[in-house]
Amino acid sequence: MPIMPLIEYAGANEEVRAVFDDIKRTRNVEDVNNFWKVLANHPPTLRQVWEEVKQVMAPGALDPLTKELIYIAVSATNGCEYCTTTHTASARSKGATEAQIAEALAVAALANKTNRLANGYRVPVDA
Amino acid sequence: MPIMPLIEYAGANEEVRAVFDDIKRTRNVEDVNNFWKVLANHPPTLRQVWEEVKQVMAPGALDPLTKELIYIAVSATNGCEYCTTTHTASARSKGATEAQIAEALAVAALANKTNRLANGYRVPVDA
Amino acid sequence: MPIMPLIEYAGANEEVRAVFDDIKRTRNVEDVNNFWKVLANHPPTLRQVWEEVKQVMAPGALDPLTKELIYIAVSATNGCEYCTTTHTASARSKGATEAQIAEALAVAALANKTNRLANGYRVPVDA
Amino acid sequence: MPIMPLIEYAGANEEVRAVFDDIKRTRNVEDVNNFWKVLANHPPTLRQVWEEVKQVMAPGALDPLTKELIYIAVSATNGCEYCTTTHTASARSKGATEAQIAEALAVAALANKTNRLANGYRVPVDA
Amino acid sequence: MPIMPLIEYAGANEEVRAVFDDIKRTRNVEDVNNFWKVLANHPPTLRQVWEEVKQVMAPGALDPLTKELIYIAVSATNGCEYCTTTHTASARSKGATEAQIAEALAVAALANKTNRLANGYRVPVDA
Amino acid sequence: MPIMPLIEYAGANEEVRAVFDDIKRTRNVEDVNNFWKVLANHPPTLRQVWEEVKQVMAPGALDPLTKELIYIAVSATNGCEYCTTTHTASARSKGATEAQIAEALAVAALANKTNRLANGYRVPVDA
Repeated sequence: MPIMPLIEYAGANEEVRAVFDDIKRTRNVEDVNNFWKVLANHPPTLRQVWEEVKQVMAPGALDPLTKELIYIAVSATNGCEYCTTTHTASARSKGATEAQIAEALAVAALANKTNRLANGYRVPVDA
Repeated sequence: MPIMPLIEYAGANEEVRAVFDDIKRTRNVEDVNNFWKVLANHPPTLRQVWEEVKQVMAPGALDPLTKELIYIAVSATNGCEYCTTTHTASARSKGATEAQIAEALAVAALANKTNRLANGYRVPVDA
Repeated sequence: MPIMPLIEYAGANEEVRAVFDDIKRTRNVEDVNNFWKVLANHPPTLRQVWEEVKQVMAPGALDPLTKELIYIAVSATNGCEYCTTTHTASARSKGATEAQIAEALAVAALANKTNRLANGYRVPVDA
Repeated sequence: MPIMPLIEYAGANEEVRAVFDDIKRTRNVEDVNNFWKVLANHPPTLRQVWEEVKQVMAPGALDPLTKELIYIAVSATNGCEYCTTTHTASARSKGATEAQIAEALAVAALANKTNRLANGYRVPVDA
Repeated sequence: MPIMPLIEYAGANEEVRAVFDDIKRTRNVEDVNNFWKVLANHPPTLRQVWEEVKQVMAPGALDPLTKELIYIAVSATNGCEYCTTTHTASARSKGATEAQIAEALAVAALANKTNRLANGYRVPVDA
Repeated sequence: MPIMPLIEYAGANEEVRAVFDDIKRTRNVEDVNNFWKVLANHPPTLRQVWEEVKQVMAPGALDPLTKELIYIAVSATNGCEYCTTTHTASARSKGATEAQIAEALAVAALANKTNRLANGYRVPVDA
């Protein structure tokens, strides 16, 4: 259960509705995810996070699919159930194959392992 | 300072030399990184990690550059100085531009942030 | 499901009852939280943690509400569902407004993000 | 050593200078911290992070000092040397006493401990 | 719900069946855990992880029970519900007492706490 | 550089000296580690942490060497340089062989890896 209620469009104020409308338009969806409905309890956070997501996840030097795979790898590292689930769905909607998702998780798993070996053995950075 | 000494080729046993030779051949380098020299204190770990790195980081459903960017994002998340430095160098040697590295870090930063918002607000997974 | 059973007052030994009594008296509650009932499986841990909580969370240079907000921020960072939920309730019982909780989470989210940018870019500490 | 060079004002482009100017004006300082000089390698990140810092760390439902203490607690949790050092300095410049910083770290330490006890024992959330 | 389906023996290919057979033979169990059924969606990961588990968790300089306790401590640190639950069961099947599990968690809790004090205060390594 | 100065015995107050004396007596050492000298800036933390270390690390259901190995595994997981270094030294002083330390790190590395696979694939807990 979330620590604050889900804010639905019908009960939202102008500021929240403007962000919800932009999310729905940008993503061409009928409703926004629970993440945005919970953030709507604090409109400045809602707006700030959405603006950042729009900017950072847009096509750039990296394509959106690669960005989703990085998102999954970090979310798995941090143990965030919500984000792992959501961004796996996003990756698939952008064309990710099951093998690509599996390889992203294999790299994340390997990095988590070698990060601890490097930190545990205190390996000095190469000259 | 590492918790165990760096093992150089000259002082290594047969088992360690075989792995060092394979690393040098596979990567076409004259010497192995400190990471491998430290792991050489425990040959089963050295061999196991190298075999996994060879398998997981090879071209597959994802190309090696994408894999390096995921590695950097996870290593930054875990605060591993050694791995962040090393894999940034690897990414560049595989053709990564500065903009690609910067965007990978921007996605990692955003994911670390939304992971905590989702966990802090206890957002329920969407139906 | 917890890895060890919840110990209720009726089935607890003298040592556990003494701690439960102190928790109930100190907090003016009728029953202790599940956290304490599970820790009661190992009385030395139960006693040690309760003594530390009493000492650290008491009014001092920081007021109890500020301490609860720090607790929430750290628990969200570590992805602890139980602690996030419990300390959000504690913060509210000490007078926290929804805006204060939301701002604490916004700071936690920002710190998690810049921590990774600083670590990923390996920013040198300022002179 | 950072993975990308520090960008000084003299060598910065218009976009970066505009952000640097705003940081210097807002904080009334003669030069920006290394964090911003490194982020200047990727102007969109520089601008986005600065806008967020300005918004989130401004006085609101929580005062700026409380926000700095939360920042320190999260940065210590994540092991970010740069952020811990910088925000301890910021907290002091906003009037934090040594006892307040020490208590913030004591709460962070306790939360990190109970987070793992709650997760390790799998304590069920209270009804 | 897992992000990929559980693969049961009946529906598995040759490669997956070979690993499942080895797990069942090595552990003398009738069926494999969900962890392996999910990894079976990506046979290279399934095989690689199982080979590593067999090697690393085998009796060596440390006995298997000590290894399980270390596994629990790390899994509690990372907040992995699945691994904490599974390895607590494994530890018990290898003879761990409740007091041993409780002490392993108490050490993990203490380490998580002092790690943050050392990182937060930036304690210099002793000469 | 620590965020607060190292407090040496000569400049310490009564309360701090009492703890330093107890550490030196208990461990039979001539001086205390930097960790305690930094915590001495906040005597309540110094005393509380030392009492906990004495209690938790004492022989019990687990022997002190096993406890040190768990400490190393958790500290490597959290990337704490100070704690990793110190507890590796402690483990050796209690008789740990290089192979035991290496195996503890190999288990920590494996757990860090499978924690992320379990979290990333969202593996359901076994019935």
